[in-house]
Amino acid sequence: MQKGYIQVYTGNGKGKTTAALGLSLRAVCAGKSVYFAQFVKGMRYSELDAVNFLKGFTMKQYGRDCFIYNEPTDEDIGRARHGLEECAKILSSGKYDIVVLDEINIALYYKLFTVDEVIKMLKGRAPGVEVILTGRNAPDEIIEMADLVTEMKEIKHYYTKGVEARTGIEC
Amino acid sequence: MQKGYIQVYTGNGKGKTTAALGLSLRAVCAGKSVYFAQFVKGMRYSELDAVNFLKGFTMKQYGRDCFIYNEPTDEDIGRARHGLEECAKILSSGKYDIVVLDEINIALYYKLFTVDEVIKMLKGRAPGVEVILTGRNAPDEIIEMADLVTEMKEIKHYYTKGVEARTGIEC
Repeated sequence: MQKGYIQVYTGNGKGKTTAALGLSLRAVCAGKSVYFAQFVKGMRYSELDAVNFLKGFTMKQYGRDCFIYNEPTDEDIGRARHGLEECAKILSSGKYDIVVLDEINIALYYKLFTVDEVIKMLKGRAPGVEVILTGRNAPDEIIEMADLVTEMKEIKHYYTKGVEARTGIEC
Repeated sequence: MQKGYIQVYTGNGKGKTTAALGLSLRAVCAGKSVYFAQFVKGMRYSELDAVNFLKGFTMKQYGRDCFIYNEPTDEDIGRARHGLEECAKILSSGKYDIVVLDEINIALYYKLFTVDEVIKMLKGRAPGVEVILTGRNAPDEIIEMADLVTEMKEIKHYYTKGVEARTGIEC
């Protein structure tokens, strides 16, 4: 069996979740299965419909339908912890070739669970499973453990010109 | 009609073409149409099969089935110039909501056509068309013209550990 690696997409630029979606698309094209877990977010994104297009692609959100302001609520923590438990089982089962842990770095930033818990989960994965972690502010311990890390660096963004998130482009 | 912006994904890190694929997937999920032009590359990539999964998604390669070493051949130049002409027509027609010009920065790096020609093509696009340009070494003139620019910066890559491109992950 091919070894599964750990990939991290972090930084403040646009393209992290998008790259994870692209990776999922390419994997499905090659006949691989993908579990796409989305932490912190629970909003209605266009990409949720990808399950209708892509064979072997499963997506589940473990966040509320609004962003966390200041302090996370008990519900934020509860949903994230439930996600961590489900993803740990999925990773150890080896049922999916690729597991995306989208925005897990943001969940760590808000301390919805600990870095040690995430590292334990990653170490417990079945050998062939490729894992993709996204979100800005990836902790040093995750960077250290990862096999591939790309920083998406914002050079220029149109939100500074007042462009809001558009359906089918950003969300 | 919603204004179409120019997005650039550049830098030496993994995730540029992948982000363009993810953006295409999200767009298709929202009922938008995508023309994905791939310059310089003509190899058999898994993502070519995306046309079988995604409604409204068209992909065409304008490169040879091997990378350019040292100097581009006449065939490299011919294919790229043909791509530029086709893409200019597609962009001005407004037939597609999103046009991806994948690896066009590499085509510019190899001087297969000029920055002025690309800028002219971008300026000639129908108002609502969103354009995505990818590839390392984006020229300053393109960065200047773009509305959004993300630099994918390599922090760590597993090819340094001898991991070769894997079907369904990198290609």
